[in-house]
Amino acid sequence: MTYAVAVNIREGLVFVSDSRTNAGADQLSTYSKMHAFCGGGQRFFVLLSAGNLATSQAVVTRLRHDIQNARADNLHTMQTMADTADYVGHVSTEEQRKIRKRNRDTDFSPDASFILGGQIAGGSPRLFLIYPEGNYVYTSKQTPYLQIGEVKYGKPILDRVMTYDLPLEEAARCALVSMDSTMRSNATVGPPIEVLLYPANRFSQGPYMSFSDDDPYLRTLRAAWEANLLEAFKKLPELKYSDAKLRLVDG
Amino acid sequence: MTYAVAVNIREGLVFVSDSRTNAGADQLSTYSKMHAFCGGGQRFFVLLSAGNLATSQAVVTRLRHDIQNARADNLHTMQTMADTADYVGHVSTEEQRKIRKRNRDTDFSPDASFILGGQIAGGSPRLFLIYPEGNYVYTSKQTPYLQIGEVKYGKPILDRVMTYDLPLEEAARCALVSMDSTMRSNATVGPPIEVLLYPANRFSQGPYMSFSDDDPYLRTLRAAWEANLLEAFKKLPELKYSDAKLRLVDG
Repeated sequence: MTYAVAVNIREGLVFVSDSRTNAGADQLSTYSKMHAFCGGGQRFFVLLSAGNLATSQAVVTRLRHDIQNARADNLHTMQTMADTADYVGHVSTEEQRKIRKRNRDTDFSPDASFILGGQIAGGSPRLFLIYPEGNYVYTSKQTPYLQIGEVKYGKPILDRVMTYDLPLEEAARCALVSMDSTMRSNATVGPPIEVLLYPANRFSQGPYMSFSDDDPYLRTLRAAWEANLLEAFKKLPELKYSDAKLRLVDG
Repeated sequence: MTYAVAVNIREGLVFVSDSRTNAGADQLSTYSKMHAFCGGGQRFFVLLSAGNLATSQAVVTRLRHDIQNARADNLHTMQTMADTADYVGHVSTEEQRKIRKRNRDTDFSPDASFILGGQIAGGSPRLFLIYPEGNYVYTSKQTPYLQIGEVKYGKPILDRVMTYDLPLEEAARCALVSMDSTMRSNATVGPPIEVLLYPANRFSQGPYMSFSDDDPYLRTLRAAWEANLLEAFKKLPELKYSDAKLRLVDG
Protein backbone atom coordinates (compact mmCIF):
# COMPACT_ATOMS: atom_id res chain seq x y z
CA MET A 1 0.00 0.00 0.00
CA THR A 2 0.98 3.62 -0.32
CA TYR A 3 -0.03 6.91 1.14
CA ALA A 4 0.93 10.14 -0.56
CA VAL A 5 -0.48 13.62 -0.11
CA ALA A 6 0.34 16.89 -1.84
CA VAL A 7 -0.84 20.44 -1.32
CA ASN A 8 -1.19 23.48 -3.56
CA ILE A 9 -1.27 26.62 -1.45
CA ARG A 10 -0.52 30.31 -1.91
CA GLU A 11 3.17 29.92 -1.04
CA GLY A 12 3.77 26.89 -3.25
CA LEU A 13 3.55 23.12 -3.22
CA VAL A 14 4.22 20.42 -0.63
CA PHE A 15 4.70 16.71 -1.35
CA VAL A 16 4.77 13.92 1.24
CA SER A 17 4.96 10.20 0.48
CA ASP A 18 5.75 6.94 2.24
CA SER A 19 8.11 4.27 0.88
CA ARG A 20 6.54 0.93 1.68
CA THR A 21 5.63 -1.44 -1.11
CA ASN A 22 3.95 -4.75 -0.49
CA ALA A 23 2.81 -7.72 -2.48
CA GLY A 24 0.85 -9.46 0.23
CA ALA A 25 1.63 -8.84 3.89
CA ASP A 26 4.77 -11.00 3.78
CA GLN A 27 6.56 -9.27 0.97
CA LEU A 28 7.46 -5.75 2.04
CA SER A 29 10.03 -3.61 0.30
CA THR A 30 11.18 -0.03 0.34
CA TYR A 31 10.75 2.10 -2.77
CA SER A 32 10.64 5.83 -3.09
CA LYS A 33 7.39 7.01 -4.63
CA MET A 34 8.60 10.58 -5.15
CA HIS A 35 10.18 11.48 -8.48
CA ALA A 36 11.48 14.92 -9.41
CA PHE A 37 12.14 16.32 -12.89
CA CYS A 38 13.97 19.61 -13.46
CA GLY A 39 14.02 21.62 -16.67
CA GLY A 40 16.75 24.21 -16.97
CA GLY A 41 15.43 26.64 -14.38
CA GLN A 42 12.24 27.07 -16.42
CA ARG A 43 10.16 24.21 -15.09
CA PHE A 44 10.03 21.76 -12.21
CA PHE A 45 7.83 18.69 -11.73
CA VAL A 46 7.23 16.15 -8.98
CA LEU A 47 5.41 12.87 -9.56
CA LEU A 48 4.06 10.76 -6.67
CA SER A 49 2.87 7.26 -7.47
CA ALA A 50 0.51 4.68 -5.93
CA GLY A 51 -0.77 1.34 -7.12
CA ASN A 52 1.07 -1.22 -9.23
CA LEU A 53 4.83 -0.70 -8.78
CA ALA A 54 5.71 -2.09 -12.21
CA THR A 55 3.35 0.41 -13.84
CA SER A 56 4.70 3.30 -11.74
CA GLN A 57 8.28 2.41 -12.65
CA ALA A 58 7.38 1.98 -16.33
CA VAL A 59 5.76 5.43 -16.39
CA VAL A 60 8.74 7.14 -14.72
CA THR A 61 11.15 5.32 -17.04
CA ARG A 62 9.12 6.35 -20.08
CA LEU A 63 8.97 10.00 -18.94
CA ARG A 64 12.77 10.10 -18.58
CA HIS A 65 13.21 8.26 -21.88
CA ASP A 66 11.03 10.73 -23.75
CA ILE A 67 13.24 13.57 -22.49
CA GLN A 68 16.50 11.77 -23.30
CA ASN A 69 15.28 10.85 -26.77
CA ALA A 70 13.91 14.37 -27.30
CA ARG A 71 10.49 13.03 -28.32
CA ALA A 72 8.03 15.69 -29.54
CA ASP A 73 6.02 15.19 -26.35
CA ASN A 74 8.17 15.18 -23.24
CA LEU A 75 8.30 16.97 -19.91
CA HIS A 76 10.59 19.65 -21.36
CA THR A 77 8.30 20.52 -24.27
CA MET A 78 4.99 20.82 -22.42
CA GLN A 79 3.46 24.29 -22.60
CA THR A 80 1.24 24.12 -19.50
CA MET A 81 0.80 22.02 -16.37
CA ALA A 82 -2.58 20.81 -17.71
CA ASP A 83 -0.85 19.57 -20.89
CA THR A 84 1.68 17.84 -18.67
CA ALA A 85 -1.05 16.06 -16.67
CA ASP A 86 -2.63 14.97 -19.94
CA TYR A 87 0.68 13.62 -21.23
CA VAL A 88 1.34 11.66 -18.01
CA GLY A 89 -2.23 10.31 -18.15
CA HIS A 90 -1.60 9.16 -21.71
CA VAL A 91 1.71 7.46 -20.85
CA SER A 92 0.10 5.76 -17.82
CA THR A 93 -2.85 4.31 -19.77
CA GLU A 94 -0.53 3.15 -22.57
CA GLU A 95 1.69 1.28 -20.11
CA GLN A 96 -1.33 -0.25 -18.41
CA ARG A 97 -2.88 -1.31 -21.73
CA LYS A 98 0.31 -3.10 -22.71
CA ILE A 99 0.24 -5.18 -19.53
CA ARG A 100 -3.51 -5.79 -19.67
CA LYS A 101 -3.09 -7.15 -23.18
CA ARG A 102 -0.49 -9.64 -21.94
CA ASN A 103 -3.00 -10.77 -19.33
CA ARG A 104 -6.17 -10.56 -21.35
CA ASP A 105 -7.41 -13.91 -20.04
CA THR A 106 -7.12 -12.87 -16.39
CA ASP A 107 -8.59 -10.12 -14.24
CA PHE A 108 -5.13 -8.84 -13.29
CA SER A 109 -5.10 -5.08 -12.81
CA PRO A 110 -1.94 -3.01 -13.37
CA ASP A 111 -3.72 0.16 -12.10
CA ALA A 112 -1.64 3.06 -10.86
CA SER A 113 -2.55 6.58 -9.73
CA PHE A 114 -0.31 9.62 -9.74
CA ILE A 115 -0.10 13.05 -8.19
CA LEU A 116 1.66 15.47 -10.50
CA GLY A 117 2.71 18.88 -9.22
CA GLY A 118 4.96 21.56 -10.54
CA GLN A 119 5.32 24.83 -12.33
CA ILE A 120 6.24 25.95 -15.85
CA ALA A 121 7.58 29.49 -16.33
CA GLY A 122 4.71 31.78 -17.23
CA GLY A 123 2.19 29.76 -15.19
CA SER A 124 1.34 29.17 -11.54
CA PRO A 125 2.28 26.12 -9.48
CA ARG A 126 -0.38 23.46 -10.05
CA LEU A 127 -1.31 20.07 -8.70
CA PHE A 128 -3.16 17.20 -10.42
CA LEU A 129 -4.40 13.77 -9.42
CA ILE A 130 -4.14 11.43 -12.42
CA TYR A 131 -6.50 8.46 -12.17
CA PRO A 132 -5.66 4.98 -13.55
CA GLU A 133 -8.06 5.85 -16.39
CA GLY A 134 -5.76 8.70 -17.45
CA ASN A 135 -8.15 11.50 -16.60
CA TYR A 136 -7.28 13.99 -13.89
CA VAL A 137 -8.54 16.56 -11.41
CA TYR A 138 -6.83 19.56 -9.85
CA THR A 139 -7.04 21.30 -6.48
CA SER A 140 -9.14 24.31 -5.55
CA LYS A 141 -8.65 27.01 -2.92
CA GLN A 142 -11.39 25.27 -0.91
CA THR A 143 -9.73 21.86 -1.18
CA PRO A 144 -6.03 22.54 -1.64
CA TYR A 145 -4.86 18.93 -1.16
CA LEU A 146 -4.87 15.67 -3.13
CA GLN A 147 -4.25 12.16 -1.85
CA ILE A 148 -3.50 8.75 -3.40
CA GLY A 149 -3.33 5.25 -1.93
CA GLU A 150 -4.65 4.65 1.59
CA VAL A 151 -6.40 8.02 1.85
CA LYS A 152 -9.04 7.72 4.56
CA TYR A 153 -7.14 7.62 7.87
CA GLY A 154 -5.26 10.82 7.11
CA LYS A 155 -8.15 12.81 5.66
CA PRO A 156 -9.87 14.18 8.80
CA ILE A 157 -6.79 16.19 9.86
CA LEU A 158 -6.46 17.66 6.35
CA ASP A 159 -10.15 18.58 6.30
CA ARG A 160 -9.80 20.46 9.56
CA VAL A 161 -6.38 22.08 9.32
CA MET A 162 -5.21 22.44 5.70
CA THR A 163 -6.10 25.78 4.12
CA TYR A 164 -4.85 27.71 1.11
CA ASP A 165 -3.30 30.40 3.32
CA LEU A 166 -1.26 28.14 5.57
CA PRO A 167 2.50 28.89 5.47
CA LEU A 168 4.51 26.29 3.54
CA GLU A 169 6.13 24.92 6.70
CA GLU A 170 2.78 24.44 8.46
CA ALA A 171 1.32 22.76 5.40
CA ALA A 172 4.25 20.32 5.41
CA ARG A 173 3.78 19.72 9.14
CA CYS A 174 0.04 19.08 8.63
CA ALA A 175 0.76 16.64 5.78
CA LEU A 176 3.26 14.85 8.05
CA VAL A 177 0.63 14.49 10.78
CA SER A 178 -1.76 13.09 8.16
CA MET A 179 0.97 10.61 7.14
CA ASP A 180 1.66 9.67 10.75
CA SER A 181 -2.06 8.96 11.42
CA THR A 182 -2.10 6.71 8.36
CA MET A 183 1.06 4.83 9.37
CA ARG A 184 -0.36 4.26 12.82
CA SER A 185 -3.59 2.73 11.47
CA ASN A 186 -2.25 0.85 8.42
CA ALA A 187 0.86 -1.32 8.73
CA THR A 188 1.44 -1.36 4.97
CA VAL A 189 2.23 2.37 4.92
CA GLY A 190 5.72 2.99 6.25
CA PRO A 191 8.96 4.97 6.37
CA PRO A 192 11.15 6.47 5.14
CA ILE A 193 8.80 9.41 4.73
CA GLU A 194 9.87 11.85 2.03
CA VAL A 195 8.95 15.52 2.20
CA LEU A 196 9.54 18.04 -0.53
CA LEU A 197 8.70 21.74 -0.39
CA TYR A 198 8.41 23.76 -3.56
CA PRO A 199 8.25 27.54 -2.98
CA ALA A 200 6.36 29.16 -5.87
CA ASN A 201 8.49 30.54 -8.75
CA ARG A 202 11.59 28.64 -7.77
CA PHE A 203 11.71 26.37 -10.86
CA SER A 204 14.15 23.99 -9.17
CA GLN A 205 14.09 21.60 -6.24
CA GLY A 206 13.27 23.13 -2.85
CA PRO A 207 13.97 21.76 0.64
CA TYR A 208 13.83 17.96 0.72
CA MET A 209 13.85 15.64 3.74
CA SER A 210 13.70 11.88 4.16
CA PHE A 211 12.61 10.71 7.62
CA SER A 212 13.39 7.23 8.87
CA ASP A 213 11.12 5.75 11.53
CA ASP A 214 13.50 6.70 14.33
CA ASP A 215 14.17 10.19 13.03
CA PRO A 216 14.27 12.53 16.07
CA TYR A 217 11.91 15.10 14.51
CA LEU A 218 9.37 12.48 13.43
CA ARG A 219 9.44 10.93 16.93
CA THR A 220 9.01 14.32 18.61
CA LEU A 221 6.19 15.25 16.24
CA ARG A 222 4.45 11.94 16.89
CA ALA A 223 4.72 12.20 20.68
CA ALA A 224 3.65 15.86 20.66
CA TRP A 225 0.66 15.12 18.43
CA GLU A 226 -0.39 12.26 20.68
CA ALA A 227 -0.14 14.44 23.79
CA ASN A 228 -1.80 17.48 22.19
CA LEU A 229 -4.62 15.38 20.79
CA LEU A 230 -5.31 13.86 24.18
CA GLU A 231 -5.35 17.33 25.71
CA ALA A 232 -7.66 18.54 22.91
CA PHE A 233 -9.98 15.67 23.76
CA LYS A 234 -9.92 16.19 27.54
CA LYS A 235 -10.94 19.84 27.09
CA LEU A 236 -14.10 18.94 25.15
CA PRO A 237 -17.43 19.77 26.80
CA GLU A 238 -18.68 16.89 28.92
CA LEU A 239 -21.57 14.77 27.67
CA LYS A 240 -24.30 15.37 30.26
CA TYR A 241 -26.96 12.75 30.57
CA SER A 242 -29.59 11.93 33.09
CA ASP A 243 -30.83 8.40 33.34
CA ALA A 244 -32.69 6.99 30.38
CA LYS A 245 -35.85 8.92 29.71
CA LEU A 246 -35.84 7.93 26.09
CA ARG A 247 -36.42 4.24 25.63
CA LEU A 248 -35.11 2.03 22.90
CA VAL A 249 -37.56 -0.70 21.96
CA ASP A 250 -37.23 -3.97 23.68
CA GLY A 251 -37.79 -7.56 22.65
CA MET B 1 -23.32 3.66 4.30
CA THR B 2 -23.16 3.28 8.04
CA TYR B 3 -20.74 4.00 10.81
CA ALA B 4 -21.13 2.37 14.18
CA VAL B 5 -18.64 2.00 16.99
CA ALA B 6 -18.88 0.29 20.36
CA VAL B 7 -16.56 0.06 23.32
CA ASN B 8 -16.04 -2.48 26.09
CA ILE B 9 -14.26 -0.82 29.02
CA ARG B 10 -13.91 -1.40 32.73
CA GLU B 11 -17.03 0.63 33.59
CA GLY B 12 -19.27 -0.98 30.97
CA LEU B 13 -20.25 -0.64 27.32
CA VAL B 14 -20.85 2.30 24.98
CA PHE B 15 -22.67 2.13 21.65
CA VAL B 16 -22.78 4.89 19.01
CA SER B 17 -24.37 4.61 15.56
CA ASP B 18 -25.51 6.86 12.74
CA SER B 19 -28.90 6.57 11.00
CA ARG B 20 -28.29 7.17 7.32
CA THR B 21 -29.14 4.48 4.81
CA ASN B 22 -28.49 4.87 1.13
CA ALA B 23 -29.04 2.92 -2.03
CA GLY B 24 -26.95 5.05 -4.34
CA ALA B 25 -26.24 8.69 -3.55
CA ASP B 26 -29.75 9.77 -4.57
CA GLN B 27 -31.73 7.51 -2.29
CA LEU B 28 -31.07 8.45 1.30
CA SER B 29 -33.28 7.41 4.18
CA THR B 30 -33.15 7.44 7.95
CA TYR B 31 -33.13 4.17 9.85
CA SER B 32 -31.96 3.45 13.36
CA LYS B 33 -29.19 0.86 13.40
CA MET B 34 -29.32 0.38 17.17
CA HIS B 35 -31.52 -2.37 18.57
CA ALA B 36 -31.93 -3.21 22.26
CA PHE B 37 -33.19 -6.41 23.81
CA CYS B 38 -33.98 -6.75 27.53
CA GLY B 39 -34.43 -9.94 29.48
CA GLY B 40 -36.15 -9.65 32.84
CA GLY B 41 -33.36 -7.84 34.67
CA GLN B 42 -31.06 -10.83 34.03
CA ARG B 43 -29.68 -9.92 30.61
CA PHE B 44 -29.39 -6.98 28.24
CA PHE B 45 -28.23 -6.90 24.61
CA VAL B 46 -27.60 -4.23 22.00
CA LEU B 47 -27.22 -5.02 18.31
CA LEU B 48 -25.72 -2.48 15.86
CA SER B 49 -26.02 -3.26 12.15
CA ALA B 50 -24.24 -2.28 8.93
CA GLY B 51 -24.54 -3.47 5.37
CA ASN B 52 -27.65 -4.64 3.58
CA LEU B 53 -30.69 -3.09 5.31
CA ALA B 54 -33.05 -5.91 4.31
CA THR B 55 -30.67 -8.45 5.90
CA SER B 56 -30.28 -6.33 9.07
CA GLN B 57 -34.05 -5.99 9.42
CA ALA B 58 -34.60 -9.70 8.73
CA VAL B 59 -32.08 -10.61 11.46
CA VAL B 60 -33.65 -8.28 14.05
CA THR B 61 -37.13 -9.55 13.14
CA ARG B 62 -36.01 -13.14 13.46
CA LEU B 63 -34.34 -12.49 16.85
CA ARG B 64 -37.57 -10.98 18.20
CA HIS B 65 -39.63 -13.78 16.65
CA ASP B 66 -37.53 -16.48 18.26
CA ILE B 67 -38.19 -14.86 21.66
CA GLN B 68 -41.92 -14.45 21.06
CA ASN B 69 -42.27 -18.02 19.82
CA ALA B 70 -40.10 -19.31 22.67
CA ARG B 71 -37.81 -21.21 20.31
CA ALA B 72 -35.19 -23.37 22.01
CA ASP B 73 -32.52 -20.94 20.83
CA ASN B 74 -33.42 -17.34 21.53
CA LEU B 75 -31.85 -14.31 23.22
CA HIS B 76 -33.55 -15.26 26.52
CA THR B 77 -32.17 -18.81 26.61
CA MET B 78 -28.52 -18.11 25.75
CA GLN B 79 -26.12 -19.09 28.54
CA THR B 80 -23.18 -16.84 27.62
CA MET B 81 -22.44 -13.82 25.46
CA ALA B 82 -20.25 -16.02 23.22
CA ASP B 83 -23.22 -18.36 22.64
CA THR B 84 -25.30 -15.29 21.82
CA ALA B 85 -22.77 -14.07 19.23
CA ASP B 86 -22.77 -17.55 17.70
CA TYR B 87 -26.57 -17.61 17.55
CA VAL B 88 -26.73 -14.15 15.89
CA GLY B 89 -24.01 -15.25 13.43
CA HIS B 90 -26.09 -18.32 12.59
CA VAL B 91 -29.29 -16.29 12.07
CA SER B 92 -27.41 -13.77 9.92
CA THR B 93 -25.86 -16.36 7.57
CA GLU B 94 -29.22 -18.18 7.28
CA GLU B 95 -30.99 -14.98 6.22
CA GLN B 96 -28.21 -14.16 3.75
CA ARG B 97 -28.22 -17.67 2.28
CA LYS B 98 -31.98 -17.43 1.65
CA ILE B 99 -31.52 -14.23 -0.38
CA ARG B 100 -28.41 -15.46 -2.18
CA LYS B 101 -30.37 -18.53 -3.30
CA ARG B 102 -33.04 -16.29 -4.81
CA ASN B 103 -30.29 -14.48 -6.73
CA ARG B 104 -28.07 -17.41 -7.55
CA ASP B 105 -27.62 -16.19 -11.14
CA THR B 106 -26.35 -12.76 -10.08
CA ASP B 107 -23.49 -11.47 -7.98
CA PHE B 108 -25.85 -9.62 -5.64
CA SER B 109 -24.52 -9.54 -2.08
CA PRO B 110 -26.88 -9.30 0.91
CA ASP B 111 -23.90 -8.99 3.31
CA ALA B 112 -24.44 -7.45 6.73
CA SER B 113 -22.15 -7.02 9.74
CA PHE B 114 -23.19 -6.64 13.35
CA ILE B 115 -21.80 -5.46 16.64
CA LEU B 116 -23.34 -7.34 19.53
CA GLY B 117 -22.79 -6.13 23.07
CA GLY B 118 -24.38 -6.95 26.36
CA GLN B 119 -24.27 -8.87 29.58
CA ILE B 120 -25.88 -12.03 30.96
CA ALA B 121 -26.12 -12.44 34.77
CA GLY B 122 -23.12 -14.42 36.00
CA GLY B 123 -20.87 -13.06 33.24
CA SER B 124 -19.09 -9.81 32.36
CA PRO B 125 -20.21 -7.25 29.77
CA ARG B 126 -18.87 -8.37 26.38
CA LEU B 127 -18.68 -7.03 22.87
CA PHE B 128 -18.48 -8.93 19.55
CA LEU B 129 -18.14 -8.03 15.90
CA ILE B 130 -20.09 -10.56 13.81
CA TYR B 131 -18.85 -10.76 10.22
CA PRO B 132 -21.12 -11.44 7.23
CA GLU B 133 -19.65 -14.97 7.28
CA GLY B 134 -21.16 -15.54 10.74
CA ASN B 135 -17.85 -15.75 12.60
CA TYR B 136 -16.96 -13.19 15.22
CA VAL B 137 -14.22 -11.48 17.20
CA TYR B 138 -14.29 -9.78 20.57
CA THR B 139 -12.46 -6.85 22.12
CA SER B 140 -9.35 -6.92 24.26
CA LYS B 141 -8.06 -4.56 26.94
CA GLN B 142 -5.52 -3.33 24.39
CA THR B 143 -8.14 -2.73 21.71
CA PRO B 144 -11.38 -2.09 23.59
CA TYR B 145 -13.40 -0.91 20.56
CA LEU B 146 -15.08 -2.44 17.50
CA GLN B 147 -16.32 -0.67 14.38
CA ILE B 148 -18.57 -1.56 11.43
CA GLY B 149 -19.32 0.25 8.15
CA GLU B 150 -17.19 3.23 7.13
CA VAL B 151 -14.50 2.58 9.73
CA LYS B 152 -11.34 4.35 8.55
CA TYR B 153 -11.96 8.08 9.05
CA GLY B 154 -12.92 7.61 12.70
CA LYS B 155 -10.17 5.14 13.64
CA PRO B 156 -7.19 7.44 14.35
CA ILE B 157 -8.94 9.20 17.24
CA LEU B 158 -9.93 5.84 18.76
CA ASP B 159 -6.36 4.54 18.42
CA ARG B 160 -5.00 7.56 20.27
CA VAL B 161 -7.61 8.21 22.95
CA MET B 162 -9.72 5.13 23.71
CA THR B 163 -8.41 3.02 26.57
CA TYR B 164 -9.90 0.37 28.84
CA ASP B 165 -9.71 2.66 31.86
CA LEU B 166 -11.51 5.66 30.38
CA PRO B 167 -14.63 6.67 32.36
CA LEU B 168 -17.89 5.73 30.59
CA GLU B 169 -18.73 9.35 29.78
CA GLU B 170 -15.31 10.02 28.22
CA ALA B 171 -15.54 6.84 26.17
CA ALA B 172 -18.93 8.01 24.84
CA ARG B 173 -17.47 11.45 24.07
CA CYS B 174 -14.52 9.88 22.24
CA ALA B 175 -16.86 7.65 20.21
CA LEU B 176 -18.91 10.76 19.33
CA VAL B 177 -15.78 12.56 18.09
CA SER B 178 -14.95 9.47 16.00
CA MET B 179 -18.49 9.61 14.59
CA ASP B 180 -18.22 13.35 13.88
CA SER B 181 -14.93 12.89 11.97
CA THR B 182 -16.60 10.21 9.87
CA MET B 183 -19.66 12.36 9.12
CA ARG B 184 -17.45 15.21 8.10
CA SER B 185 -15.49 13.09 5.58
CA ASN B 186 -18.28 10.82 4.28
CA ALA B 187 -21.62 12.30 3.26
CA THR B 188 -23.40 8.94 3.45
CA VAL B 189 -22.93 8.75 7.22
CA GLY B 190 -25.43 11.01 8.95
CA PRO B 191 -27.63 11.94 11.90
CA PRO B 192 -29.52 11.30 14.04
CA ILE B 193 -26.63 9.90 16.05
CA GLU B 194 -27.70 7.44 18.72
CA VAL B 195 -25.66 6.94 21.89
CA LEU B 196 -26.30 4.28 24.49
CA LEU B 197 -24.33 3.78 27.70
CA TYR B 198 -24.47 0.49 29.53
CA PRO B 199 -22.95 0.61 33.02
CA ALA B 200 -21.71 -2.88 33.96
CA ASN B 201 -24.11 -5.07 35.99
CA ARG B 202 -27.15 -2.99 35.21
CA PHE B 203 -28.99 -5.64 33.15
CA SER B 204 -31.34 -3.04 31.69
CA GLN B 205 -31.09 -0.04 29.39
CA GLY B 206 -28.78 2.75 30.54
CA PRO B 207 -28.68 6.39 29.45
CA TYR B 208 -29.72 6.80 25.82
CA MET B 209 -29.49 9.91 23.60
CA SER B 210 -30.40 10.63 20.01
CA PHE B 211 -28.66 13.69 18.52
CA SER B 212 -30.06 15.48 15.47
CA ASP B 213 -27.63 17.43 13.29
CA ASP B 214 -28.53 20.73 14.97
CA ASP B 215 -28.45 19.36 18.49
CA PRO B 216 -26.80 22.01 20.71
CA TYR B 217 -24.41 19.55 22.36
CA LEU B 218 -23.32 18.00 19.06
CA ARG B 219 -22.71 21.47 17.60
CA THR B 220 -20.73 22.59 20.63
CA LEU B 221 -18.70 19.38 20.60
CA ARG B 222 -17.97 19.78 16.88
CA ALA B 223 -16.88 23.42 17.19
CA ALA B 224 -14.79 22.70 20.29
CA TRP B 225 -13.09 19.74 18.62
CA GLU B 226 -12.30 21.80 15.55
CA ALA B 227 -10.83 24.61 17.67
CA ASN B 228 -8.92 22.27 20.01
CA LEU B 229 -7.52 20.27 17.10
CA LEU B 230 -6.27 23.41 15.41
CA GLU B 231 -4.64 24.49 18.66
CA ALA B 232 -3.13 21.00 19.07
CA PHE B 233 -1.67 21.37 15.58
CA LYS B 234 -0.32 24.90 16.07
CA LYS B 235 1.57 23.78 19.18
CA LEU B 236 3.48 21.06 17.31
CA PRO B 237 7.24 21.47 16.98
CA GLU B 238 8.16 23.36 13.85
CA LEU B 239 9.66 21.48 10.89
CA LYS B 240 13.14 22.99 10.55
CA TYR B 241 14.80 22.71 7.18
CA SER B 242 17.70 24.33 5.53
CA ASP B 243 17.80 24.52 1.80
CA ALA B 244 18.05 21.30 -0.12
CA LYS B 245 21.25 19.45 0.67
CA LEU B 246 19.74 16.15 -0.25
CA ARG B 247 18.95 15.90 -3.91
CA LEU B 248 16.19 13.97 -5.53
CA VAL B 249 17.19 12.56 -8.89
CA ASP B 250 16.44 14.59 -11.89
CA GLY B 251 15.47 13.87 -15.47
